[in-house]
Amino acid sequence: MDNRIHREVIGGHLLVIGGAEDKYNERRILRKFLELTGTDGGETNVLIVPVASDFPEFAADIYVQAFRRLGIANPRVLRATSRQDVFAADADALFDGVNGVFITGGDQMRLVSLLGGTKFAQKLRQVATETNVVLAGTSAGAAGMSTSMIVRGDATPHPHKNSVRLSPGLGFLKNIIIDQHFTERGRISRLITAVAYNPYNLGIGIDENTAIILDNEGVLEVFGEGSVTVVDGSQITYNEIAEVDDFQSFSVCGVQLHILGNGLIYDYFGRTPLQPPNEFLLPDIE
Amino acid sequence: MDNRIHREVIGGHLLVIGGAEDKYNERRILRKFLELTGTDGGETNVLIVPVASDFPEFAADIYVQAFRRLGIANPRVLRATSRQDVFAADADALFDGVNGVFITGGDQMRLVSLLGGTKFAQKLRQVATETNVVLAGTSAGAAGMSTSMIVRGDATPHPHKNSVRLSPGLGFLKNIIIDQHFTERGRISRLITAVAYNPYNLGIGIDENTAIILDNEGVLEVFGEGSVTVVDGSQITYNEIAEVDDFQSFSVCGVQLHILGNGLIYDYFGRTPLQPPNEFLLPDIE
Repeated sequence: MDNRIHREVIGGHLLVIGGAEDKYNERRILRKFLELTGTDGGETNVLIVPVASDFPEFAADIYVQAFRRLGIANPRVLRATSRQDVFAADADALFDGVNGVFITGGDQMRLVSLLGGTKFAQKLRQVATETNVVLAGTSAGAAGMSTSMIVRGDATPHPHKNSVRLSPGLGFLKNIIIDQHFTERGRISRLITAVAYNPYNLGIGIDENTAIILDNEGVLEVFGEGSVTVVDGSQITYNEIAEVDDFQSFSVCGVQLHILGNGLIYDYFGRTPLQPPNEFLLPDIE
Repeated sequence: MDNRIHREVIGGHLLVIGGAEDKYNERRILRKFLELTGTDGGETNVLIVPVASDFPEFAADIYVQAFRRLGIANPRVLRATSRQDVFAADADALFDGVNGVFITGGDQMRLVSLLGGTKFAQKLRQVATETNVVLAGTSAGAAGMSTSMIVRGDATPHPHKNSVRLSPGLGFLKNIIIDQHFTERGRISRLITAVAYNPYNLGIGIDENTAIILDNEGVLEVFGEGSVTVVDGSQITYNEIAEVDDFQSFSVCGVQLHILGNGLIYDYFGRTPLQPPNEFLLPDIE
């Protein structure tokens, strides 16, 4: 099954965060983001992309302050509330010498409809796929990373056909559908539904203050407080989703589920959880 | 894997209901209960066991009325609010000529602590295992049917070790753990936890107004409005539950999940969903 699932990104790490990451106390995930840039305490240039937010200035400010407190002198921000603003932004200058890009939360539809097809998005893709720049996204910024993203879907108790809507995302993760605030908002039904639409996609549900770190060789590592739920539909033997009406429940058999805590490793090329060595069970030390 | 899971009951059908079954309109499940007695419109004797309820007279009355409206002349009731009452009940008379036993909802701990070890329970077991009497239970009456039953467990978003407590049930279903009000109350985490304790147990989560019908040859059929979620832990490759503290999340890999709608069939001896013929996709006709 190798290479059934892959990333567009062949550059640096992807850091995909389930939302509500700690910005004031331990800040493990934000620190990890900076650590992954590999600048090792030297000058680190961070670009914040807050356009998913309804209040992008406010969202930007929170992360500017958070990164400043972690020693980043001058975090950059894509300041834009419209496509015109994105067109007007000097993408070359914003990305010049950048080590990490951080996409904030908000609404993934807003994120993608503002950025999609712009020179900025093109540059973002180029930087993420051809360089070692770390690309991080939280909440909407996480959802928007995949080729097919979940844009709507209330936490309905039963998985039904209309419990989720998919829309094209920024496409850094192919054949992976990300869901966030996952167990906090009881989203397993909607993720199973999203996977049932096309079991070619691997569903990954990320809890709050929890992230997955993906390298370009198929290694996904769980990092943070909560769990990551992997919904693998590749072994589905029976899938009724095409047969039912919009709001009807459907049957689906043979879904594989993995619930992975901090430190656990999943091979996202081969769709296999890797048995952790015992050290992974020890408390994480910063 | 044949016979890994089996029932104590080798008599009539078991009807295990996820709670809140319709008692006033279509009443598909109550009708199915009567149909399974095989009396075919002839005299049907039904015994109601309402002792799980805090208000057993009230619970009994609801089912007495419901069965009367469905043509059962004189439903019998085990009237008991204490073990003394259960001891005093004339079990032989109550079970004499009975075709179906219906255990109501309430608190499964109350059900089992009142009935366990009494002559009534012994007679109930004998009737259920040695005759064609249909044994039905709803909600607490469903949970109490298994050898290990879930007695507590708030719907915690994350599966953690303490998210569920198991206690010995009435034991009609061996190696099966029943959960009820399943998707309505977001109980998948607690059922996965219960299965992770000992993956020998198959977890079966039943939605409201939905039932499973089990025969004694391993056939489980889903019947009703909602879905039945089967959590099969027999393929679990990694299970951290013994390693973590009480309120800590744990990792578990390789859980098999099947979501089965009305009419779908599962082989509960062999732990395999059976591919439904196309007719199962047609609307159910009473």
